[in-house]
Amino acid sequence: MIWLRRNVLTAATALVAGSSFARRAAAQGAPDPQPPRPAPQGGARAPITTLQGRTLPFVMKDGVKEFHLVAGEYTQEFAPGFRVKVWGYNGSSPGPTIEAVEGDRVRILVTNKLPEHTSVHWHGVLLPSGMDGVGGLSGPYIKPGETYAYEFTLRQNGTQMYHPHGDEMLQIALGMMGMFIIHPKDPDEGRVDRDFAWMTHAWKIDPGTSRPNPAEMTDFNIWSLNGRIFPATLPMVVKTGQRVRIRVGNLSMVEHPMHLHGHHFEVSGTDGGPIPPERRWREATVQVPVGTTRDVEFIADNPGDWAYHCHKSHHTMNAMSHAFPNMVGVNQGEAAADIGKLVPGYMPMGRTGMAEMQSMSGMMPGPRNTSPMMAGRGPYGSMEMGGMFTTLKVRDELASYDDPGWYQAPAGTVAWRVA
Amino acid sequence: MIWLRRNVLTAATALVAGSSFARRAAAQGAPDPQPPRPAPQGGARAPITTLQGRTLPFVMKDGVKEFHLVAGEYTQEFAPGFRVKVWGYNGSSPGPTIEAVEGDRVRILVTNKLPEHTSVHWHGVLLPSGMDGVGGLSGPYIKPGETYAYEFTLRQNGTQMYHPHGDEMLQIALGMMGMFIIHPKDPDEGRVDRDFAWMTHAWKIDPGTSRPNPAEMTDFNIWSLNGRIFPATLPMVVKTGQRVRIRVGNLSMVEHPMHLHGHHFEVSGTDGGPIPPERRWREATVQVPVGTTRDVEFIADNPGDWAYHCHKSHHTMNAMSHAFPNMVGVNQGEAAADIGKLVPGYMPMGRTGMAEMQSMSGMMPGPRNTSPMMAGRGPYGSMEMGGMFTTLKVRDELASYDDPGWYQAPAGTVAWRVA
Amino acid sequence: MIWLRRNVLTAATALVAGSSFARRAAAQGAPDPQPPRPAPQGGARAPITTLQGRTLPFVMKDGVKEFHLVAGEYTQEFAPGFRVKVWGYNGSSPGPTIEAVEGDRVRILVTNKLPEHTSVHWHGVLLPSGMDGVGGLSGPYIKPGETYAYEFTLRQNGTQMYHPHGDEMLQIALGMMGMFIIHPKDPDEGRVDRDFAWMTHAWKIDPGTSRPNPAEMTDFNIWSLNGRIFPATLPMVVKTGQRVRIRVGNLSMVEHPMHLHGHHFEVSGTDGGPIPPERRWREATVQVPVGTTRDVEFIADNPGDWAYHCHKSHHTMNAMSHAFPNMVGVNQGEAAADIGKLVPGYMPMGRTGMAEMQSMSGMMPGPRNTSPMMAGRGPYGSMEMGGMFTTLKVRDELASYDDPGWYQAPAGTVAWRVA
Repeated sequence: MIWLRRNVLTAATALVAGSSFARRAAAQGAPDPQPPRPAPQGGARAPITTLQGRTLPFVMKDGVKEFHLVAGEYTQEFAPGFRVKVWGYNGSSPGPTIEAVEGDRVRILVTNKLPEHTSVHWHGVLLPSGMDGVGGLSGPYIKPGETYAYEFTLRQNGTQMYHPHGDEMLQIALGMMGMFIIHPKDPDEGRVDRDFAWMTHAWKIDPGTSRPNPAEMTDFNIWSLNGRIFPATLPMVVKTGQRVRIRVGNLSMVEHPMHLHGHHFEVSGTDGGPIPPERRWREATVQVPVGTTRDVEFIADNPGDWAYHCHKSHHTMNAMSHAFPNMVGVNQGEAAADIGKLVPGYMPMGRTGMAEMQSMSGMMPGPRNTSPMMAGRGPYGSMEMGGMFTTLKVRDELASYDDPGWYQAPAGTVAWRVA
Repeated sequence: MIWLRRNVLTAATALVAGSSFARRAAAQGAPDPQPPRPAPQGGARAPITTLQGRTLPFVMKDGVKEFHLVAGEYTQEFAPGFRVKVWGYNGSSPGPTIEAVEGDRVRILVTNKLPEHTSVHWHGVLLPSGMDGVGGLSGPYIKPGETYAYEFTLRQNGTQMYHPHGDEMLQIALGMMGMFIIHPKDPDEGRVDRDFAWMTHAWKIDPGTSRPNPAEMTDFNIWSLNGRIFPATLPMVVKTGQRVRIRVGNLSMVEHPMHLHGHHFEVSGTDGGPIPPERRWREATVQVPVGTTRDVEFIADNPGDWAYHCHKSHHTMNAMSHAFPNMVGVNQGEAAADIGKLVPGYMPMGRTGMAEMQSMSGMMPGPRNTSPMMAGRGPYGSMEMGGMFTTLKVRDELASYDDPGWYQAPAGTVAWRVA
Repeated sequence: MIWLRRNVLTAATALVAGSSFARRAAAQGAPDPQPPRPAPQGGARAPITTLQGRTLPFVMKDGVKEFHLVAGEYTQEFAPGFRVKVWGYNGSSPGPTIEAVEGDRVRILVTNKLPEHTSVHWHGVLLPSGMDGVGGLSGPYIKPGETYAYEFTLRQNGTQMYHPHGDEMLQIALGMMGMFIIHPKDPDEGRVDRDFAWMTHAWKIDPGTSRPNPAEMTDFNIWSLNGRIFPATLPMVVKTGQRVRIRVGNLSMVEHPMHLHGHHFEVSGTDGGPIPPERRWREATVQVPVGTTRDVEFIADNPGDWAYHCHKSHHTMNAMSHAFPNMVGVNQGEAAADIGKLVPGYMPMGRTGMAEMQSMSGMMPGPRNTSPMMAGRGPYGSMEMGGMFTTLKVRDELASYDDPGWYQAPAGTVAWRVA
């Protein structure tokens, strides 16, 4: 185990989250991480923060908000050095977040730059049957090269999504999805200070390949939050005392129980809209079923660095060897020597657990184009996490919503060695 | 892609849902699709509509409603030409829906025509311990050829189920299950205009075989609603403005998030009975865990043809080749030519996605006794769905609850091509 | 099928649950089943009953409740003769239940006797960032041989858990987990008469081996309640009319829908604390997502022996041959004779279902160190269950909370043979 001093580790993390990775990602067609946006002032509502992503801009045309989605194939860097060929919108998977306001008339142009036809279904949005985007049923498909217009008036508020509805299993498996968030007309309704949006996803990407396998149905190996995997996921940064909403959408094939440390929250909304306050339940983990969204709200009253992650433990791991033999408790000494005669470079692992793997991961070459199973370094050493993991950073003082580095715990508030 | 005119497609759909398939199914022991039942008049409650199924009749004997279930093996046509050997009740899987009223005394005779013993557990029904149907614990098993009587008074209302409790994994995997719906004593309590019941199920049926594999535990390939798979599932037909309840039961081994387009609903009941109105949540997708039921209610205020389906995207596909190689983005031209020399008739697929597979499915022979992965034709072309998919058809005018054909969207309300 | 008289079966069950198995388990480092604790008297609250487990004792030091957890590897007997090498705390998996009261200052010493580093995260507990136990992020890991102290004041009540947060997938897969239950300050708040705690878990233990495979992520074969599998699970014993709470925690990788027969319950709590009574839902099955807890409450008003189990039917089976061929409906007569020439002792099974397997399980040798797929005998014969299955025994009269034997159903209240 290599123990580094805290400032070195902070620098390493900054490297991951910072400009080098971002510049490379941008050059490959994936979006810049969204620059921090200022806290809302006066009567305005908090904008949506789509970490590692962004909000889709619109233009006003005769009283209609016109958006433009472009469906295409992109190379996206899920973590430094791990590039994946995704299908998405406007350069990334998930596509940009659509933000609008209840009562708006919206027109969404969709251009298809994919090699096959597509359509867009506005999941959870109440609209005319012909705008529902179920290919073959609601209207025609958008063929490669074509642009279609969907237009409707928003008569609800809440957390919805968009995705194709036609060759759906393949197109969604490759990454075609995004958030569609409709704010209430009254900015005081459901007001929060910070409002985060995450799309979860599950991928099967064999180590050494870059193309997700759309025929996988149960045994995924890469788990993402807004198209990144830990340690490349960005932290949610909030000020002590702020009211925070986290919105999560799930279009993978498996449930994601999203757990927040250090706080309890109320489940405040679904893809059917807000839950009235008097009907809400408190949870520490919100189950996000497939084909749904869940909003949670809480006061960030506990300063610190708090893990936020899916609680299925294999969803916080990166690509794993699924054929990895069970070596726990096996003394591989002699066998390793024997195997070593036949397989030069053979290296036995796992006898005492798997933590040793992370400590070795920087010292030996791994497979090409993948990410170590367990990764990330915190102020106290390796974090041994991956996938759907990030942090909520709560600070008493904040100059901006940039990553403030690691929490400096007050003296006497950290678990201590007694023997 | 073959584009047919709307009336041809409507005719094709009628063929699937209509008399030819139904007659064949009946001849094989599976039930007729239930004929549409009239809307309730005056003070009567809406009867349960078990599409593709039916309600179990009873006879009154000395103030007791006596029902008769017969457990047996049947051949059931899941979709035209795809015949499956199921275990079920009274000719089908799921068995007929038991409908009764709170306060009723019921006696249910169960005759076992299976090759092994069975029992019936009345899931969620409050009754004496000896009537609970857990083989070995509550009472003896019903041996092949025997008939047992279960008798109890209903002291609740809600959506319950029945299924064996003994060699349970095998018997349920083969299809033994049904709905047990208890109406409130007061017909105005929880009144709706249309009341639908669906049993979901997951099967592993290797293409070319007809016997589900009861030893499969995670990797299913056929997903049914009331024992049929899309495009053989019937639509739910309702009139604009009606209050609609949909009840869903799940005795498979995996959760089913049931999503309705064009409407939000409230989750109004579980297998523990109705949820009081002031405690309900709105959703666009209701997660139906295993071993539970969920009722949802809504006003059908949005005319159109609305998809209703499980949102796990592989659950809206039919039998798939699980060994299908990942060909997305692979130019198979030269390789295909080479393979073609060795394998006459070899046909490369999937380079641009899988949508092309549906367009080919009518042109080349598939495996025997299965169903294409993606199927169904709508008014605007192929729908590329399967499995747990059907529609809710909402119409301003209805002469009957027969399938009214495809929705004619008013001019200007369908997404349109702009480039 | 071998039918034994009721008293013989009761004796057989007593053997399983009784002293022989318990003594052996204790000798191997696993804990005694907790002796029955008396019902609460006067103003005291009901203690937690962790069946097959126990509550962790503490010592008071200067107003602080000091607990001591020891992480280590142990051999635990999941069912008679089936020994598993688990990682756990203080001799067992799950570790002992921590019970404390809102407002308490607690100090928890953790000694690491594992071969690799660990940490303890107090799931759902509101505490300072440095006590949160996320290795590398909240504080240092506990290296082998070291002891750390975690100390914090409890400012909530409810059902929480503890588990490692570092090499988490492996350590949890091997069994490292426990319940952390915080009682309300006021003993009348949420008062019940009986209060049970269960930790569920999923394991992959190949028949003939004793070491769970921590690299398995989807296809588990052993399902436990408090580290035992049916028929070695103990029953919950309650008196008619008592108010009962059942708390369930889930740190496996898959959801567990826990179903109770003969009663409906309200879901009364999560890992975010109690649900206010006016917001609760009634259920017959509570879905326990991964990384959560669920409390349910009900009045035990229905005397009898009631099944309590996970409703995923493969979770109530023990180790299965996942390569078991589908023999349902196959007459193996001739083939068996042919195979028998090549494979002496070959025995065809499964043609009429799998129930025959249980009846044979005592007559032929099975694989070493595993448990029959279907097991357990009730008063009326084989129960054909396994894994996450036990019973709730409700009796009008109880001298103690020892197992009262099988329910004697009043005459005329058991389903009867009519033909």
